[in-house]
Amino acid sequence: MNPSPPRILEVRKNLLKKNDELARQLRQDFAQTGMLVVNLVSSPGTGKTTFLRRTLSDLRAQGRQVAALVGDLATDNDARKLAESGAPVRQISTDGCCHLEADMVAAHWAELNVTDCEVLFIENVGNLVCPASYDLGEAIRVVLLSTTEGEDKPLKYPKLFNTADVAVITKMDLAEPCEFDREAAHRSIQDVRPGMRVFETSAKTGLGMAEWYAFLEAARS
Amino acid sequence: MNPSPPRILEVRKNLLKKNDELARQLRQDFAQTGMLVVNLVSSPGTGKTTFLRRTLSDLRAQGRQVAALVGDLATDNDARKLAESGAPVRQISTDGCCHLEADMVAAHWAELNVTDCEVLFIENVGNLVCPASYDLGEAIRVVLLSTTEGEDKPLKYPKLFNTADVAVITKMDLAEPCEFDREAAHRSIQDVRPGMRVFETSAKTGLGMAEWYAFLEAARS
Repeated sequence: MNPSPPRILEVRKNLLKKNDELARQLRQDFAQTGMLVVNLVSSPGTGKTTFLRRTLSDLRAQGRQVAALVGDLATDNDARKLAESGAPVRQISTDGCCHLEADMVAAHWAELNVTDCEVLFIENVGNLVCPASYDLGEAIRVVLLSTTEGEDKPLKYPKLFNTADVAVITKMDLAEPCEFDREAAHRSIQDVRPGMRVFETSAKTGLGMAEWYAFLEAARS
Repeated sequence: MNPSPPRILEVRKNLLKKNDELARQLRQDFAQTGMLVVNLVSSPGTGKTTFLRRTLSDLRAQGRQVAALVGDLATDNDARKLAESGAPVRQISTDGCCHLEADMVAAHWAELNVTDCEVLFIENVGNLVCPASYDLGEAIRVVLLSTTEGEDKPLKYPKLFNTADVAVITKMDLAEPCEFDREAAHRSIQDVRPGMRVFETSAKTGLGMAEWYAFLEAARS
């Protein structure tokens, strides 16, 4: 059912290998500077930008040095929203490409020209499929799922959830009007990735954000 | 910024051309039988399945012959939900592929083995990028956007909105708790696709569904 013929699969495999090699090098470079790199992946509309804007603001208020790279096919809307936090932010325009790749991260991180950054967040293109295959050199891959989406998203997009380290449920303030089935969502996540840690959050009310920051702090040290 | 080297672009171009040729043939075949074919595209979590389940149920109650094909990377959850309407439904498992292609539609439509169908709905894989490039032989491409997503999705994923014929805003019952900015959403859609017809709907309350059915009826005749 996979529509790609053998020759395209082979070319793609080489591209992936090249991406993986660069990502491995990036991961080493990032680790040497003591910087934690976090890759945020989710469907479009899950609320990655709102969640990240609050994260950047709060961590800055706690005295942390943070920065962000954000990928989109078009517009710099997200970079402008994230920059409201006061953190250094750079938009990566993928010009139609449906995911970020390691070379984009390397180039834009260099151009951001930030020193002493403690946590770098990378907000991936909104897509539950392709970003799963592209290592960006991150230490932690976070998959986000909102209460406004179907609870079975992990079952329907297993690879993305399976390659993530932790899950964040966003928009918990909308759980009631959306009739969010909390049990079903947790069951779906654990079916695909048994034992995965899950944060229930609302960037609007602040619910669960302290636990998320404590997790980042622990991961950094 | 597009990461594909020339040789992969060339292979992809040939694949697209092959898909387009098959889609053109399918469109002729469908038109000859007088069947209207509608391709539904959106982000994961926009509510395509709930919207389509209600559409199938209501059109059947009006005496219409309808059927559906639904694409997902994994699970037959959506086909089971749609089948609750009583309509003939077939799940297309893409086995990891992030969009439907014309050959999948041709094969699964043949296997569905339905005669006298008046409207065939194709629910695409949840993805705001890749389905834009794959003609499925449909007469009408419908892009869905929910009140729980950001109002700037059309600007951030212009190709999908630009290749669609009409837009459907879903989950209007959640507009208030989600602080949905109706004006901004319409402005984004019209910026990308001036003059595009937009339906504001709620599959839960039934809002706007009658207008949607009237549109389908007019398109069929």
